[in-house]
Amino acid sequence: MKLWQKTNDVNKAVEQFTVGRDREMDLFLAEADVLGSLAHTRMLESIGLLGSEDLANVQRELKNIYRDITAGKFTIEEGVEDVHSQVEFLLTQRIGDAGKKIHSGRSRNDQVLVDLRIFLRRQIREIVADVEQLFHRLQQLSEKYKEVLMPGYTHLQIAMPSSFGLWLGAYAESLVDDTEMLHAAYRICNKNPLGSAAGYGSSFPLNRTMTTQLLGFDTLSYNVVYAQMGRGKSERIMAQAMSSVAATLARLAMDNTLFLNQNFGFISYPAELTTGSSIMPHKKNPDVWELIRGKCNLIQGLPNQIAMMTTNLPCGYNRDLQLLKEVLFPAIAELRSCIHMAVYMLENLQVKEHILDDPKYDYLFSVEVVNNMVLNGVPFREAYKKVGIDIENGNFKAEKTVHHTHEGSIGNLCTDEISALMQQTLDKFHFDRVDRAETELVK
Amino acid sequence: MKLWQKTNDVNKAVEQFTVGRDREMDLFLAEADVLGSLAHTRMLESIGLLGSEDLANVQRELKNIYRDITAGKFTIEEGVEDVHSQVEFLLTQRIGDAGKKIHSGRSRNDQVLVDLRIFLRRQIREIVADVEQLFHRLQQLSEKYKEVLMPGYTHLQIAMPSSFGLWLGAYAESLVDDTEMLHAAYRICNKNPLGSAAGYGSSFPLNRTMTTQLLGFDTLSYNVVYAQMGRGKSERIMAQAMSSVAATLARLAMDNTLFLNQNFGFISYPAELTTGSSIMPHKKNPDVWELIRGKCNLIQGLPNQIAMMTTNLPCGYNRDLQLLKEVLFPAIAELRSCIHMAVYMLENLQVKEHILDDPKYDYLFSVEVVNNMVLNGVPFREAYKKVGIDIENGNFKAEKTVHHTHEGSIGNLCTDEISALMQQTLDKFHFDRVDRAETELVK
Amino acid sequence: MKLWQKTNDVNKAVEQFTVGRDREMDLFLAEADVLGSLAHTRMLESIGLLGSEDLANVQRELKNIYRDITAGKFTIEEGVEDVHSQVEFLLTQRIGDAGKKIHSGRSRNDQVLVDLRIFLRRQIREIVADVEQLFHRLQQLSEKYKEVLMPGYTHLQIAMPSSFGLWLGAYAESLVDDTEMLHAAYRICNKNPLGSAAGYGSSFPLNRTMTTQLLGFDTLSYNVVYAQMGRGKSERIMAQAMSSVAATLARLAMDNTLFLNQNFGFISYPAELTTGSSIMPHKKNPDVWELIRGKCNLIQGLPNQIAMMTTNLPCGYNRDLQLLKEVLFPAIAELRSCIHMAVYMLENLQVKEHILDDPKYDYLFSVEVVNNMVLNGVPFREAYKKVGIDIENGNFKAEKTVHHTHEGSIGNLCTDEISALMQQTLDKFHFDRVDRAETELVK
Amino acid sequence: MKLWQKTNDVNKAVEQFTVGRDREMDLFLAEADVLGSLAHTRMLESIGLLGSEDLANVQRELKNIYRDITAGKFTIEEGVEDVHSQVEFLLTQRIGDAGKKIHSGRSRNDQVLVDLRIFLRRQIREIVADVEQLFHRLQQLSEKYKEVLMPGYTHLQIAMPSSFGLWLGAYAESLVDDTEMLHAAYRICNKNPLGSAAGYGSSFPLNRTMTTQLLGFDTLSYNVVYAQMGRGKSERIMAQAMSSVAATLARLAMDNTLFLNQNFGFISYPAELTTGSSIMPHKKNPDVWELIRGKCNLIQGLPNQIAMMTTNLPCGYNRDLQLLKEVLFPAIAELRSCIHMAVYMLENLQVKEHILDDPKYDYLFSVEVVNNMVLNGVPFREAYKKVGIDIENGNFKAEKTVHHTHEGSIGNLCTDEISALMQQTLDKFHFDRVDRAETELVK
Repeated sequence: MKLWQKTNDVNKAVEQFTVGRDREMDLFLAEADVLGSLAHTRMLESIGLLGSEDLANVQRELKNIYRDITAGKFTIEEGVEDVHSQVEFLLTQRIGDAGKKIHSGRSRNDQVLVDLRIFLRRQIREIVADVEQLFHRLQQLSEKYKEVLMPGYTHLQIAMPSSFGLWLGAYAESLVDDTEMLHAAYRICNKNPLGSAAGYGSSFPLNRTMTTQLLGFDTLSYNVVYAQMGRGKSERIMAQAMSSVAATLARLAMDNTLFLNQNFGFISYPAELTTGSSIMPHKKNPDVWELIRGKCNLIQGLPNQIAMMTTNLPCGYNRDLQLLKEVLFPAIAELRSCIHMAVYMLENLQVKEHILDDPKYDYLFSVEVVNNMVLNGVPFREAYKKVGIDIENGNFKAEKTVHHTHEGSIGNLCTDEISALMQQTLDKFHFDRVDRAETELVK
Repeated sequence: MKLWQKTNDVNKAVEQFTVGRDREMDLFLAEADVLGSLAHTRMLESIGLLGSEDLANVQRELKNIYRDITAGKFTIEEGVEDVHSQVEFLLTQRIGDAGKKIHSGRSRNDQVLVDLRIFLRRQIREIVADVEQLFHRLQQLSEKYKEVLMPGYTHLQIAMPSSFGLWLGAYAESLVDDTEMLHAAYRICNKNPLGSAAGYGSSFPLNRTMTTQLLGFDTLSYNVVYAQMGRGKSERIMAQAMSSVAATLARLAMDNTLFLNQNFGFISYPAELTTGSSIMPHKKNPDVWELIRGKCNLIQGLPNQIAMMTTNLPCGYNRDLQLLKEVLFPAIAELRSCIHMAVYMLENLQVKEHILDDPKYDYLFSVEVVNNMVLNGVPFREAYKKVGIDIENGNFKAEKTVHHTHEGSIGNLCTDEISALMQQTLDKFHFDRVDRAETELVK
Repeated sequence: MKLWQKTNDVNKAVEQFTVGRDREMDLFLAEADVLGSLAHTRMLESIGLLGSEDLANVQRELKNIYRDITAGKFTIEEGVEDVHSQVEFLLTQRIGDAGKKIHSGRSRNDQVLVDLRIFLRRQIREIVADVEQLFHRLQQLSEKYKEVLMPGYTHLQIAMPSSFGLWLGAYAESLVDDTEMLHAAYRICNKNPLGSAAGYGSSFPLNRTMTTQLLGFDTLSYNVVYAQMGRGKSERIMAQAMSSVAATLARLAMDNTLFLNQNFGFISYPAELTTGSSIMPHKKNPDVWELIRGKCNLIQGLPNQIAMMTTNLPCGYNRDLQLLKEVLFPAIAELRSCIHMAVYMLENLQVKEHILDDPKYDYLFSVEVVNNMVLNGVPFREAYKKVGIDIENGNFKAEKTVHHTHEGSIGNLCTDEISALMQQTLDKFHFDRVDRAETELVK
Repeated sequence: MKLWQKTNDVNKAVEQFTVGRDREMDLFLAEADVLGSLAHTRMLESIGLLGSEDLANVQRELKNIYRDITAGKFTIEEGVEDVHSQVEFLLTQRIGDAGKKIHSGRSRNDQVLVDLRIFLRRQIREIVADVEQLFHRLQQLSEKYKEVLMPGYTHLQIAMPSSFGLWLGAYAESLVDDTEMLHAAYRICNKNPLGSAAGYGSSFPLNRTMTTQLLGFDTLSYNVVYAQMGRGKSERIMAQAMSSVAATLARLAMDNTLFLNQNFGFISYPAELTTGSSIMPHKKNPDVWELIRGKCNLIQGLPNQIAMMTTNLPCGYNRDLQLLKEVLFPAIAELRSCIHMAVYMLENLQVKEHILDDPKYDYLFSVEVVNNMVLNGVPFREAYKKVGIDIENGNFKAEKTVHHTHEGSIGNLCTDEISALMQQTLDKFHFDRVDRAETELVK
């Protein structure tokens, strides 16, 4: 059953190649697709393209289908091309020809577009919730270990004293900026493309403002050609925002594998969170962090994959764009599971105390000595030179105490201020507006 | 002259390799560097690390250097490692040892960080201004040609009627979303990293809130470890925002080369904006658009280049990060020149009228015919089937008129609404705040 | 059942996250894994680490398992970690403790390494066979249509006469160079890493030369640390070779969508190889070519994805590398199906004759006119200028005949010479050597 | 002066934008351009398109220009568009109108193509020579330190004993495979595109076999459309081969920064090969290795940049391709300088002896203990379990000796065998053939 089938048969091999993993991917869009149809049909009725009785029937059965989907009772049947066809098929089975009318004034192009936007804004919301959880975990650990010092490195050389409070808090603050990127993606996705039809609009007097409000979008993707150009673009921007979170996670994972290494030995995890080796009986490997790193590095490459597929495509819809679903959807799930695992691992983090007692870390304090000389009136460059010569001659003596008090330093982590920055960013999303709209549509 | 030179000589080959194109790139940062020092020294005085007389001297001469830079009279001398050294060197020449004190409580690491943030927020501002100009040009042309129809394509197959108004307006609206990305980059860049020193803060009682206000930053990069992690991250996010603008331009360029092609022949440019061939005397090639496409596609790859250089780097500063300047700075200039050339070309765009008179475009109107049947009560699927069979049998007749009226369609471009969206996005930048702060610092 | 399980339980969530899609991916490696074990155990017996009776049992059952795999009767059971564990598990079920001895002198690391190499060299062989088929199809069509002229473009502007013979033959020759890349990948993959254990070798007196010969490898990856570094590197190089084929296919697909476009209208395909639109009853879309383009562009991005995951990893095996299977294996199958579909489509290609009769193509012949003047003694630059002025003044007259005779031009396609280049490249693979070795092992 | 200038002025802004960095980049091609013209004109004379007197003049002056170029006395003058124009301009100045005839039967397209191929094959030769030097340095150091043990890591966890001999030898062997990739690139580049004109051949009876032999190419890029498609493709393949070398270097650099870190402390370099910090007087930073890593990671991204620029371009020459020079040429110089610096650093490498005396490395030997039990008849899985339990209970005792004897292991590095593999790969290039041809042309 294909919506566009006329009299010619489409070759089997062609069909298999073109359908690809579409059925599997379209399942992700099922709820969004029904929401789109609920809004579209109410608008159709308002402009006289659907009778009120038909509307009542359509709405009732679409809501039933929606409930089936959320209950996990919806599948796209073998031989049905996509989610849109499946929904229309079910509808027509139940309420007859009225079911076919839901496609009036739409193309599958804007149907997919609106499904994608609804889906992506939901996914962003889920990712933001995950990020928030990781943020709080990191902040909590940062406060817990704010007194525990560790070496700080530059050029991977021992540099200056740092602390677990600083290290863990840094990743929390990193997530604030990542959330800013997620917000930009949300702003760009939360615009209504419905009504753009195949990318050139419709001669029906559609009321796009009405569907915009019904679906809880911030505004419209006005220009219908641009609405279509948004395919590929929203995915790329979504992937860029995801890559930002992924970069933070990958770096956190890299640090963990380094600090777990026995030469550093700064942290450890319970044995049941590590894995063994098939030939080395002593191994306790940090596979979880390594896989988070690997998966997140793949996600970092995602925007490039999307750009590679969309660059230099001629104007208007091209079928290549269909493949973006396979590229993006599984990556969203991967990113979320990486965040979950990171939260879980961090709950079990064990940090080593008194690391700096080891004399190899004495040089961490050379800047302190310089600074004390400066506070006593010696010009910086001279103090620096003297301590440098002391070190070369083996005369350097460290006082291993830190007195950092300024904003964001060891003694003053500004956890509350960073928390406030995060809250300020979160407040910009207004997820409740979308909530209200979606709840209203299906109730 | 190297700030960190003690007694060992650094090997010549090593020096040449490590300095690389740094002097050239650091010139971009000169103004920002002086601004940073102006704020830093005022703060040093406020916490008693610089005498008021020294401060007066330092401020006077820094302002002189700033004026020299803006007048194009500043260079980084041979043998001087970077812009920071050059400024300190000039200062010490002019006011003696007090000049050396400007480095107290800082490392070159946070000096570069703050320079970069000041530089990037300025560059974003310039790009936004360029984007705005292109936006207005596109909107103006969209209105001018809103009555001129052209074919719309899907799968690069003739699909439905479009217009030059739609086509040009689509790119205008695309720039609204790109500006949203630039705003996210701006938010992330406009945070003060000064005071993070080498990434682990300082034992001096620095007042980071004071430098934040003096430099007009929105807030601080609080956590000093995160401030350092921002190196590489700000550049990647800047590049992502640039890639968004670049993708819009590259696509516009691709459309132009296609529509200029004689098989399409939808548009033309005056001969003096095209170039010739060394063997084909009839050629008028759209080299400008091809180069915009090529340059912008390179910029689309930029975030990937930065990710490739920063992925899996160990925590803390690594020298690899220095190379990001060479990767990013020239690309900013390239992007801006591409926008300028696009504006310039579009000023000279000539569009062809009456394209749709050609009978090959008759099928564009098949959907209209279907829709008219639907408006007369025929269910969509049946109307669709009938017209399809008419086409196959050669009985299809087109009425070549369009009656699109809904938001964002041929007859209702919503230029004002799109303009309002752009203005709303522009209003979020508050460039004036930074302006006031910078002006205050150097006056 | 985990080979490395001792007494600690591994957390469920950790297990699920770390196993990931490994069972699914490992199925691809099953045959290779058994081949590796067949060779390894014969070597173990030769150095006295396995009794001859044990060897006989192990060999018999491994061959049975191999036959099960080729017959599609092999699965990796729920709760079994990977293919190596599954094979060992089956073996131990059937022949008791002797089954456990096949792991002596190996780690899972070099077991995966050797599996991958055997798998990749097989896949290269399959891809080469597919490429060869496409090559012959293109050459055949190139000869068939060598008299049919078409416009040639530069800057997408009408430039000079071309022909379907040239166009199709170009892609054939492109595949010759792609095969050269496949050969480099083959050379690099066809080296034996077995015996490198966990990347640091074994204290057992392994005879790596023996397994090299038994498995039909060209030579060894000698250095055991390098053998391990080959993980990630072989995959990246494999992906680079694949990207070369993919680039050829993507470009061929792009040409097809362009030439199918009604403004060009140079080629067509039977309706059953195209797809329709849900709202435009006249559409016959080239979805197959668009999907080939999209899938191949994704494959072009594959080496970058692998580089992103492997860049800056610390020395020695890292778990991130496991994920490369999911990245690479499905892409191999995708590439092969794209080649198959391209062959299939080309079989049904219909080309338009007499395209150049259309007067819009007259300028294609301007160079001919210039060249004729040159042959009559006019210096090239003067002839070029005169014809250019004629064109501007509307006085240009074309003689629409081509007399190209040199190697590789319209009148002299050199199909045989290109065929010989391909054969020469194919001859370098020596697939028969591997064949003989593998057949010998399982018989 | 532009070869294609007729009567229209080309707009200044357009000219500046389109010329870009072309003059700078074209200097790299100057020698190759003259070689191409030397061969082309001899061929022109052989087919009667150039008189023998003209030929003699042209050859004499081209050789003079060639000598000027090699002597550094050649520049592309302001206002001259490219290297081809500059050479023709000089020639015409010196020998009059005969100078203009060298362009007969060519386009700038195939002139750039042949220049690029000649340039790239030379650059590959230089890179191969550099790689060979690094290879020998690594092998020499591997032999020198073959008795010095170091820990081997997997998952960055202490795993099994390794040695400096293994570590350094691994990178030598890696370069063998990289050279295989360089050879594939060389094969693909060493084919003659001259005679393809603007990508559609010429109506002149060119003798392309003759120029192929004169220029020392292995064979022709026969099909003229494919010869043109080679633009972008050769660059991408060249970049892929370079990325292979770069990946090896970047990993070597990463290892160096890790082993130089004080927590590892396995190696050191003289102070004059390290750099200092502006605030930490004790720092000796491995900037050279960090910059090698960063530069090589950028080069790893190069094939992606080229793919991004060439993907989905329409058939035939497009101006975007010109930009590839700026992307590729400087990267070649960067790669070479990275190899030189790596050789230089390694000459000064100092390795630490007796690392394994530290008790934290005891577990490295757990596999030895297992293996000894196996040699005494205990099944592997049981031995593994027992040692694992000993370790957990603190009863594990290590004998810190290694007895690895198999090919490629600590005690048997197979340096000669690896050397033979390298030589075998080098022998395939036959650089002497090209040498003879080029020398013959200019003498």
